[in-house]
Amino acid sequence: MKAINDDERIDYLLAEDDMHIIQSPEVFSFSLDAVLLAHFAYVPIKKGNILDLCTGNGVIPLLLSRRTNASITGVEIQERLADMAQRSVELNGLGDRLSMIHGDLKEMKTELGHSAFDVVTCNPPYFRSPAKTEHNANAHLTAARHEVYCTLEDVVKACKLHVRPGGKVAMVHRPDRLVDIIALFRQHRIEPKRIQFVYPKYGRDANMLLIEGTRDGKPGLATLPPLYIYHEDNTYTKEAEGIIYGKQ
Amino acid sequence: MKAINDDERIDYLLAEDDMHIIQSPEVFSFSLDAVLLAHFAYVPIKKGNILDLCTGNGVIPLLLSRRTNASITGVEIQERLADMAQRSVELNGLGDRLSMIHGDLKEMKTELGHSAFDVVTCNPPYFRSPAKTEHNANAHLTAARHEVYCTLEDVVKACKLHVRPGGKVAMVHRPDRLVDIIALFRQHRIEPKRIQFVYPKYGRDANMLLIEGTRDGKPGLATLPPLYIYHEDNTYTKEAEGIIYGKQ
Repeated sequence: MKAINDDERIDYLLAEDDMHIIQSPEVFSFSLDAVLLAHFAYVPIKKGNILDLCTGNGVIPLLLSRRTNASITGVEIQERLADMAQRSVELNGLGDRLSMIHGDLKEMKTELGHSAFDVVTCNPPYFRSPAKTEHNANAHLTAARHEVYCTLEDVVKACKLHVRPGGKVAMVHRPDRLVDIIALFRQHRIEPKRIQFVYPKYGRDANMLLIEGTRDGKPGLATLPPLYIYHEDNTYTKEAEGIIYGKQ
Repeated sequence: MKAINDDERIDYLLAEDDMHIIQSPEVFSFSLDAVLLAHFAYVPIKKGNILDLCTGNGVIPLLLSRRTNASITGVEIQERLADMAQRSVELNGLGDRLSMIHGDLKEMKTELGHSAFDVVTCNPPYFRSPAKTEHNANAHLTAARHEVYCTLEDVVKACKLHVRPGGKVAMVHRPDRLVDIIALFRQHRIEPKRIQFVYPKYGRDANMLLIEGTRDGKPGLATLPPLYIYHEDNTYTKEAEGIIYGKQ
C-alpha cells in the first residue's frame, strides 16, 4: 500500500510532532470544528468503545486517541476518505485500537451492533442538500459539507442506535440548526446535557455549537461558558490556542 | 383606592425619576430577569398590541411602555399582584394604553381573543412544582416561582393562542429548561429565531436564557453574543449597567 497519493500530504496533527494525518485539499482537510469536538466530547479514559460517524480523514479518532485508551471506530461513506483515514491510523501506529470502516451510517446495524458504544461523536455535513446544480463541483467536498448521503435525522438515528443506554453522543454543528438538533435528540431519546456556543470574536453571533447528550438521560442542561476563537487582531485567544495546539 | 398598602413601597423603575413601580417584598418584587426580557424583546415602535403573561407587578409592561406606543395588556393570576400592577399603571399615568387583568392565562381566550397580539412576552415561574411540603411558606412567592398555577406547556400554549401568525413570542427562563422550551415552542409552531445566554460572570455557566420565536416562522436561529452581568469584583459590566439603568 502506498503511504500517500499524489494529491495528498502528511500534516502534523496539532502542534505535536509525534502525530500525523494524511490530508488532501482536493478531497478533504479537517477543520477547526473537528478539533473543538474532539476536545469537547467526554471520553472514558482507560477503556471502552467510541464510535465516530462521518469521520472524514479520521481526524476525530486520531485526536481522541490522545485522551483515551478506548477502542475507536470511524465510519466514512466516501471510500477515498475512509482509506485515507485508515492509512493515517497505520502511519501513527494506532492500528491496535483505531479502525476505519468504509460504510453508510444508515446501514451499520449488523456490522457494529446496537447499543455497543459508550460514546458516539459526529461532525456531520452542515448544510441541507441543495439542488444538484448548486452542488460544489467537487463531489468529495460536497458530500462532506451537504446532506447528500445523510440528513441530520439519519445521523441522530444512527447515534441513538449505536450508543448504549446512559452513553453519550457529542456533535458539532451550526447554531442555526440548534432547534432541529434539540428536537431530534429528544425525539430519539438522547437528552441534551451540555452545550457550548463558539463565537468567532467578542460581540459577534455564535457560529458553531457543541452539544452532548445522554441516551435515556434525565432532563437538565448545562450551558458552558462561551468559547471565543479570535481576538480583534485575528490572533487566537488563549483558550482557542490551548485547544488547537493541544495544550489543554 | 389607596395608592399603596402597608407592606408596599413605591420604587423607582430603573434609574429614571419619572417612572415608579409598586412593590412589596412580602408578595412580589421584580427581578433582573424581567428587566433583561423587556430589553431583549422586539416591540413595534408606533402601534400594535402587546401581551405580557405572568406579569406579576407589571414590571415588563411598564418597562416596555418606554420603548413603544403600542397598547400593552398584562395578565396575572394572583389578584393581589394584578391590583398592584394596575395601581402602578395609574401612578405613572399610563392608563390610556396599559391595562392589567386579573386572570388565568389558561382561560383568556374569550376575553383576549386568539391571534390578537403582535408580541407576547412572558417571565414565567421557573421551577417545576414541588411537593406541597416544599412550597415556600409564602403562597405569593411560591406561585411566582413555581409551576403551581401553570406549567411551561400552559404558558407556551397561551402564547401561541394569543399571538398572531408572524407575531413574536419572547421569554426569559433558566438554561436548564432550554430543551423543554425549544421542544414546546416548535410543537406549538413558535419557531425560535433569536437566543441569548446570560452569564453571571466570565467563565461561569449561563444562568439565564432569553429566547424569541416567531409564530409559523421559518427555521433558522441566531445566537446573540453572550451577556455578562458582573465583573469579577461584583460590579455590573458596562452592558448590564446600560440595560439595568435604562441607558440602552
